[in-house]
Amino acid sequence: MEKTIVKLPVRGYHLDGYNHVNNARYLEFLEEARWQHFDNISKDAYKTLKWAFVIVNININYKYPATFGDVLRIETTIDKIGGKSMTFQQEVFLNETETPVCDAKVTFVILDTATGKPLTIEGDLLQLLQKEISI
Amino acid sequence: MEKTIVKLPVRGYHLDGYNHVNNARYLEFLEEARWQHFDNISKDAYKTLKWAFVIVNININYKYPATFGDVLRIETTIDKIGGKSMTFQQEVFLNETETPVCDAKVTFVILDTATGKPLTIEGDLLQLLQKEISI
Amino acid sequence: MEKTIVKLPVRGYHLDGYNHVNNARYLEFLEEARWQHFDNISKDAYKTLKWAFVIVNININYKYPATFGDVLRIETTIDKIGGKSMTFQQEVFLNETETPVCDAKVTFVILDTATGKPLTIEGDLLQLLQKEISI
Amino acid sequence: MEKTIVKLPVRGYHLDGYNHVNNARYLEFLEEARWQHFDNISKDAYKTLKWAFVIVNININYKYPATFGDVLRIETTIDKIGGKSMTFQQEVFLNETETPVCDAKVTFVILDTATGKPLTIEGDLLQLLQKEISI
Repeated sequence: MEKTIVKLPVRGYHLDGYNHVNNARYLEFLEEARWQHFDNISKDAYKTLKWAFVIVNININYKYPATFGDVLRIETTIDKIGGKSMTFQQEVFLNETETPVCDAKVTFVILDTATGKPLTIEGDLLQLLQKEISI
Repeated sequence: MEKTIVKLPVRGYHLDGYNHVNNARYLEFLEEARWQHFDNISKDAYKTLKWAFVIVNININYKYPATFGDVLRIETTIDKIGGKSMTFQQEVFLNETETPVCDAKVTFVILDTATGKPLTIEGDLLQLLQKEISI
Repeated sequence: MEKTIVKLPVRGYHLDGYNHVNNARYLEFLEEARWQHFDNISKDAYKTLKWAFVIVNININYKYPATFGDVLRIETTIDKIGGKSMTFQQEVFLNETETPVCDAKVTFVILDTATGKPLTIEGDLLQLLQKEISI
Repeated sequence: MEKTIVKLPVRGYHLDGYNHVNNARYLEFLEEARWQHFDNISKDAYKTLKWAFVIVNININYKYPATFGDVLRIETTIDKIGGKSMTFQQEVFLNETETPVCDAKVTFVILDTATGKPLTIEGDLLQLLQKEISI
């Protein structure tokens, strides 16, 4: 499976009272990396898609207190796709090193926006999520 | 005109790398105070209103670096309503003192959601914004 | 163990492109609730404490898409304290109902700020975290 | 004076209940652009500098409701430097067009961290802010 690598510099506004990146901000960084991962879905497609990507679980480990001037290297892969859910594996490393800053498993369901029900991930939807097709 | 007073404690996640409340976070605090100001507009009304409240200008002065443990006292009044815009005056003070933390003028237009055009503020709309009626 | 209940109204700025509260924003809501839980630690104590409360894991389930006008009821308890870590159980409900919006386990270590090493949670530190003493 | 151009794609987590970029989020975008503008100040220099860059005023006009999939082009220049303050001019355009999304004047003072007093902007400090020297 394809791995997407995103680099984000840590700025002053990302920090909190402990002078490290706040726990909530990492979820925005991970979301940013996932948008970049799905570069096979066009801006126009997102607007017309009948599929809503809804997070059901995030399990995140915080390992290193990144601070101002660090560059975060976020590596995003699909951990598994099965039945009615898919899970991303996202690992954040410090600069060019292998020092882990945090890692997370982020699990989604894809809702049919007409019914609000989760879809079985198969066919075009499966291919799209595996980046085998573009829309 | 009515003044709304809102108190918000400063937490660790509101701070930035300078250990004071970040400039962007104040705009969220001011928005929170404005929602509380318009307690004459019900949750259900917001969902069905054909009026969209859209900010066109914010002019904010930062005067004191509030930090962890401070309580911000936000005083919101309507500065003026005229023609096609309205302006809030919002002043933020430190705890129970008269020490100013920041102050802002926040100017809105109200768009007709059907046409996307700004409405002249008169009649029911004027009364609503002046809190003379509830919906 | 004591349970802390915090109520937070959902505003327009809490939502994202799906018109529901964004996944990252919930972590700020949970952080807010934890600050309120530890009302036995004074503002001054936080500033002089030699203990830093550092999150090592968050495992959060998203169950219901809260949106504008909902009020979130956040119930915070300590799930367990043992060895060198403590875990909060935080449950978010919709308005006055038992409808779960999300729930999370949030695990901390307490670092000695002089050494950067995690402390064994015992003695005064244990009593403080169990809210048996105030500082 | 040098102009810095930064491009930022609008993601789902940047939007609010009106489905456009929230007013507060723009201040984070502008802050991001200013960090990139001062690429003549190294990460290490920021950590040892005896100068703190503190915002005293932001005057921002919101002109166009950017939404998901738009790319914001932020152009940052120094508007003026004089006496004890400096002002940035920041203009945000839609994609590759000249459609203005917002513009802002952001005024700073530079505090001497030892005294907490604003410095007169001259000599090395002036040259640094004009990007004539690097540190």
